[in-house]
Amino acid sequence: MPNGERLDRMRQAMEAERLDALILRWPENVLLLSGFWPMIGATVLVFPREGTPVCIIPHCYESEARLSLWDAKTVFYRFGVLNAPNPASCVRDILSDLARGRGWRRIGYEAFEAVAPSWNSAEVLVPTARTLELYRAAFDGSELIDASLLLHTQRRRKTSYEIGKIRTVSEISCLGLEAFERSVEVGISGVELAALVEREIMTRGTRYQGAARVRAYAQVAVGPDESAVGYRPNEISTPHRLERGEVALLELGVVADGYWADRTRVRIAGAPSEEQLRVFDTVRTAQEAAIASIRPGATGADVDEAARSVIRNAGYADAFPHITGHGVGFAYHEAAPLLAPGSTGGLEEGMVTSVEPGVYFTPCGGFRIEDDVLVTENGSEVLGPFRKEVA
Amino acid sequence: MPNGERLDRMRQAMEAERLDALILRWPENVLLLSGFWPMIGATVLVFPREGTPVCIIPHCYESEARLSLWDAKTVFYRFGVLNAPNPASCVRDILSDLARGRGWRRIGYEAFEAVAPSWNSAEVLVPTARTLELYRAAFDGSELIDASLLLHTQRRRKTSYEIGKIRTVSEISCLGLEAFERSVEVGISGVELAALVEREIMTRGTRYQGAARVRAYAQVAVGPDESAVGYRPNEISTPHRLERGEVALLELGVVADGYWADRTRVRIAGAPSEEQLRVFDTVRTAQEAAIASIRPGATGADVDEAARSVIRNAGYADAFPHITGHGVGFAYHEAAPLLAPGSTGGLEEGMVTSVEPGVYFTPCGGFRIEDDVLVTENGSEVLGPFRKEVA
Repeated sequence: MPNGERLDRMRQAMEAERLDALILRWPENVLLLSGFWPMIGATVLVFPREGTPVCIIPHCYESEARLSLWDAKTVFYRFGVLNAPNPASCVRDILSDLARGRGWRRIGYEAFEAVAPSWNSAEVLVPTARTLELYRAAFDGSELIDASLLLHTQRRRKTSYEIGKIRTVSEISCLGLEAFERSVEVGISGVELAALVEREIMTRGTRYQGAARVRAYAQVAVGPDESAVGYRPNEISTPHRLERGEVALLELGVVADGYWADRTRVRIAGAPSEEQLRVFDTVRTAQEAAIASIRPGATGADVDEAARSVIRNAGYADAFPHITGHGVGFAYHEAAPLLAPGSTGGLEEGMVTSVEPGVYFTPCGGFRIEDDVLVTENGSEVLGPFRKEVA
Repeated sequence: MPNGERLDRMRQAMEAERLDALILRWPENVLLLSGFWPMIGATVLVFPREGTPVCIIPHCYESEARLSLWDAKTVFYRFGVLNAPNPASCVRDILSDLARGRGWRRIGYEAFEAVAPSWNSAEVLVPTARTLELYRAAFDGSELIDASLLLHTQRRRKTSYEIGKIRTVSEISCLGLEAFERSVEVGISGVELAALVEREIMTRGTRYQGAARVRAYAQVAVGPDESAVGYRPNEISTPHRLERGEVALLELGVVADGYWADRTRVRIAGAPSEEQLRVFDTVRTAQEAAIASIRPGATGADVDEAARSVIRNAGYADAFPHITGHGVGFAYHEAAPLLAPGSTGGLEEGMVTSVEPGVYFTPCGGFRIEDDVLVTENGSEVLGPFRKEVA
């Protein structure tokens, strides 16, 4: 069992919550407890506290499931072809059969409001209130419990198996950072930069350390108006072209077989001004101070303050309007840890957090540097380290 | 009002269902009734049967909202920055204020299980059972009604404004088909083909007829094993390289400002065999027969049979295991119309359907041709027409 630690920890947590089973539909949670990353969400994992998990899977993904599933029973149902049964009633019948004679009293389900899409992210299947009714019909006599908090809590600390996977996707993300660095020049547009970063990651990242399904989501803000006027969490790439002395800011999400990286780099076309150099150095120093402060027991507020004090002391306090970091790994953004003012949560070994301070003002431009950092026994490790150069 | 026909039709449908208001969170439905395509799903549209709609929007998308929203009141809330309020309680308070004194008795909400993601599809926010509780708290005293069927039904027939938008994204998709056609050659891999199709669409499609946010989702199966063994609804691109005489099959989803196209082309590296030519001609003839049979009043079964009979008569009946087409436009896949055996639903003017027969067997390979077709007053129109050539 490649990730036995995860299954053991989850079963202990289920025991503490007196849950007899979990029933999971989000791709990220099916992956967490089965090793299989569904193509679309109509895969259902029943994970009992005792005994072998059962994974209900559309027949067309049988080969992917066989290659990646850990120890689990599988039930395949015909899907997407003529004479396929109605998926909902089909899944309900399989679940009813499964429930019979088990005597499960409390079953946990997910009520997540944010979903990490599967590789084929053009369409996302999600369980809604209707799915809950289906569960009620199938598990008649059991109590259904919202296990979202339990899942989120358990997901905070990654196992060594999972850290290996997140390290892989972080290394893959470097292919995109490298392409960005190489390509920023006067005259190139944000959509051109975004598209070539995504292309590089898909073509060179697929099969990197065995990764089978790899996709990047790049956004590149170009010039002060896009990068600094009205800071926002998600840049929007446009055909606006870089002019000499302007900044390009790359916000990059990458997924490899269900594990996520979140990176940012900035780069100037041509020579940076003195002010741009000062801002970039401030942001880099702040990011490195935050990383240096990461260790088990430090709070999210401690790490945030390590970055924020550097930026405050340089006179840019008002130009850093966002948090310093968030959890990452099973999704592009996870709730814990939270590196922010007032965040009292202590860091624990095995957590992975983004570290991404930024300074944004016109006409200088928006500057942010972001890496994903593992909390280790004694400190931290940057996953997929990559140089930070503004020009 | 650029799409007044949509608002009028929806208000009539709401009257028939005695709904006083709709409350919408899915990006595709917010777009449908407001003109604004949210970046992420935390945008809420309250659409009353009488009076002006209200759109609740994260502050960071204010400029996008101002550019695209039709006649609607806006409420912006601080999001993604320090000292931003909790989004859920913030939205609940805004909704409570809004509800006060309105006397709404019946309010419709969405319980969709498939979501068309927004442009930033690395993370999808979805309303779950928890959101429904939030609505119950905010609209205390109102009855909450699942309006999913009403929304799906109303979305079947597109208005002339929407047809214009879908025509635009279909034309943008041709940029990808062209890049594919140009690039299929011995030695290229599926991920390379997919990545360059996506890049071409993002870089050349953005700003085409004013489109602001454009993204493609390409999947390329290469050779008989990937394209024909175990047919499946979603191909998976790999680094496997095309050999001489092998087929490459491109499955392509494209979104432009919230409107979707769904295309497929196949192409042989080098010269096709006689059998491959025969299969390709059969599929093309079947697809064109289906398109020729499309008109108001024809049933989904009629159109399916027009394609299926061509394939059956050529001796490939068992090699065509899927439906002939599905609705498309507000999402990559919509439920109606359904071009399939036994589908009694009649086509109506303004519907848009994919037409995508295919034949899959080894060692010949998998062949499918797909276009999106509008049902017109007297027949049909292929949106974004593009040549069909196998080599």
